[in-house]
Amino acid sequence: MMRSMKAVTCRKGELEVADLPTPVLERGHLLLEVVRCGICGSDLHARHHADAMAEAAATAGYDHAMRLEDEVVLGHEFCGEVVDVGPRTSRKIRPGTLVVSMPLVRVQGAVHPIGLSPQAPGAYAEQVVVQQALTMPVPNGLSAESAALTEPMAVGLHAVRRGEVRRGQVAVVIGCGPIGLAVVSMLKASGVRTVIASDFSPGRRALAESCGADIVVDPATESPYDSMDSHGYHTSATSLFDLAVGSMEKLQRLPLPWWHVMRVAEAVGAMPSGPVVFECVGVPGVIDQIIASAPLVSRVVVVGVCMGEDQLRPSIAINKEIDLRFVLGYTPKEFHESLQLLAEGKVDGRPLLTGTVGLEGVENAFDALGDPERHAKILIDPSSGVTAP
Amino acid sequence: MMRSMKAVTCRKGELEVADLPTPVLERGHLLLEVVRCGICGSDLHARHHADAMAEAAATAGYDHAMRLEDEVVLGHEFCGEVVDVGPRTSRKIRPGTLVVSMPLVRVQGAVHPIGLSPQAPGAYAEQVVVQQALTMPVPNGLSAESAALTEPMAVGLHAVRRGEVRRGQVAVVIGCGPIGLAVVSMLKASGVRTVIASDFSPGRRALAESCGADIVVDPATESPYDSMDSHGYHTSATSLFDLAVGSMEKLQRLPLPWWHVMRVAEAVGAMPSGPVVFECVGVPGVIDQIIASAPLVSRVVVVGVCMGEDQLRPSIAINKEIDLRFVLGYTPKEFHESLQLLAEGKVDGRPLLTGTVGLEGVENAFDALGDPERHAKILIDPSSGVTAP
Repeated sequence: MMRSMKAVTCRKGELEVADLPTPVLERGHLLLEVVRCGICGSDLHARHHADAMAEAAATAGYDHAMRLEDEVVLGHEFCGEVVDVGPRTSRKIRPGTLVVSMPLVRVQGAVHPIGLSPQAPGAYAEQVVVQQALTMPVPNGLSAESAALTEPMAVGLHAVRRGEVRRGQVAVVIGCGPIGLAVVSMLKASGVRTVIASDFSPGRRALAESCGADIVVDPATESPYDSMDSHGYHTSATSLFDLAVGSMEKLQRLPLPWWHVMRVAEAVGAMPSGPVVFECVGVPGVIDQIIASAPLVSRVVVVGVCMGEDQLRPSIAINKEIDLRFVLGYTPKEFHESLQLLAEGKVDGRPLLTGTVGLEGVENAFDALGDPERHAKILIDPSSGVTAP
Repeated sequence: MMRSMKAVTCRKGELEVADLPTPVLERGHLLLEVVRCGICGSDLHARHHADAMAEAAATAGYDHAMRLEDEVVLGHEFCGEVVDVGPRTSRKIRPGTLVVSMPLVRVQGAVHPIGLSPQAPGAYAEQVVVQQALTMPVPNGLSAESAALTEPMAVGLHAVRRGEVRRGQVAVVIGCGPIGLAVVSMLKASGVRTVIASDFSPGRRALAESCGADIVVDPATESPYDSMDSHGYHTSATSLFDLAVGSMEKLQRLPLPWWHVMRVAEAVGAMPSGPVVFECVGVPGVIDQIIASAPLVSRVVVVGVCMGEDQLRPSIAINKEIDLRFVLGYTPKEFHESLQLLAEGKVDGRPLLTGTVGLEGVENAFDALGDPERHAKILIDPSSGVTAP
């Protein structure tokens, strides 16, 4: 057992490779030797904007998220091999097993997000402490590279589930970063027939196609909603008023007394249906833009995390009966399903993988991720000496 | 048949009783003699802020909403007797029948909202033109006073349906104006066991109790969410992280191998559930306040119409997995159900009725509605000479 380990620390926006003591395990913990850890957009954001993230988490009830002045080890998308087991902890999973874990751990009684809390160092490191209860062996000989995508793919799966997309309903994915691409992948794995993906970057649009998008759109030249009429949705050219009157006029032409007509109306009843739109950008103004441009009765799943205040026009959302469903993470069940879907080959995350670096290369990888034409998901292999992705 | 009629016109914020020509009927129209017409909060709003409302409607696809400079006859919550039938129009409903109608009418091909469009004068008048296809006889000898509440009650029913409230789920109604009270009434008619209503006004809280609210709260002294823990919901003291870890730790204590545990997790799976919150205020900032203070996974139905821009913090909504469902009006089916529920005595709108005026009293009624202690819903009886509610 190592007494110290190499890790990348982050404090006040500075990344540094440091020697840290091997973590102490509590009851319920496992120690993993990290095999691969993905660099997440949240990590790039946390590096400079951790304080705003911590404020939002505190308002929602979690008071211990990392602050800029904390020393934190980032990294919450990882897989590793079990190398040690905490005191009085179930040994259901054998040492040496390749596992993934939901990035949450209980430390001195309180639950912390691994890689986003000073109390729970993440997997930009040779070793990481995880909660045995949230740890799952990697099945079917799935590669460590693919297994490390369990976490972002679970975010996509959760978003799709919360969107309650029917197979025949059109899904529109706005923004094709890794999370947008995970949403595209999970929509196709769920059997959704028409997935439209929109991104300004040609590279990202090509990745969206690799992930299964049926139509890709450059929002600089066309709207992802342009083809909606042909799918039976109602773009802003038609109002809910017209739909209500039109449907009742049709029914009234039936040779029936009015109360029979009302019975038929009750049977056909209900609201028109719109597409499901996934907001995977997370920049101020995007939600309002979607509200203003999406068809009537669109369901908007907000996956992109926009920090700070955002403006929108509720009166337009009301006129169009828009749903906004904000989503965070995934359930343990969805995390497990994501792993299974990867292991069974029903989703393939490999198109996202654009590079691998060692711990010394993390800073360069952060820079490289600024170019969407070249990179989507970069993995860290702590045993590697590669310094540029 | 009258060749002219008295009506209250509204132009540039001025209300005036005027003689207007009897409307010309098109195919599909009925002419009603107005028996009662409710004064709606939207009317008070439209009087001074029609331009902002028209902008929002235009963005959603409806270009002909009233502007301040238009001369409009307000009034969209009405019942009346059929007195004439348009050319080549179904005579399914006999002259003399007391009816209600959805306030939408097709004029020269385009659908307009009755009482909120210069092309579709409303029922602050002796007569009003309606669409036969959207008109329903008042059954069971229901009084005209109660029948005139079909429309606001349908708004409440639609909001409750879109909220998908389960009977055992707690519903919280923020704001007890007429629409909040309609929501309270429809929640109770739907069998929802616990309805908490919140309003600063003691008079409105008393009305909420009359409409069936189980608990009323003065938000100046307590939060409507204070009792949520006792209902099994998770207020901001607990985060989604804790819930995920806690549930998996419990399962892991079962004497089962990990893959069995995951199967159990899939069975119990899914997300925790929160209450359903109805935003019936419609003032900037209220949505954000609800997002910040409601329990985790709350579903927020936005019924109050906030004009213009509003600010909210998406990151808090994301951390708590909030749903925002914006709603407008009702379907023809819901309008009919609302009428049936009133006629069968399953909802009783009479507690809301706080006054009746003639056309000459509309201006005074608008003023009186500024005092929530004295008034909730004032009806217009065009045959009455009463000038003060």
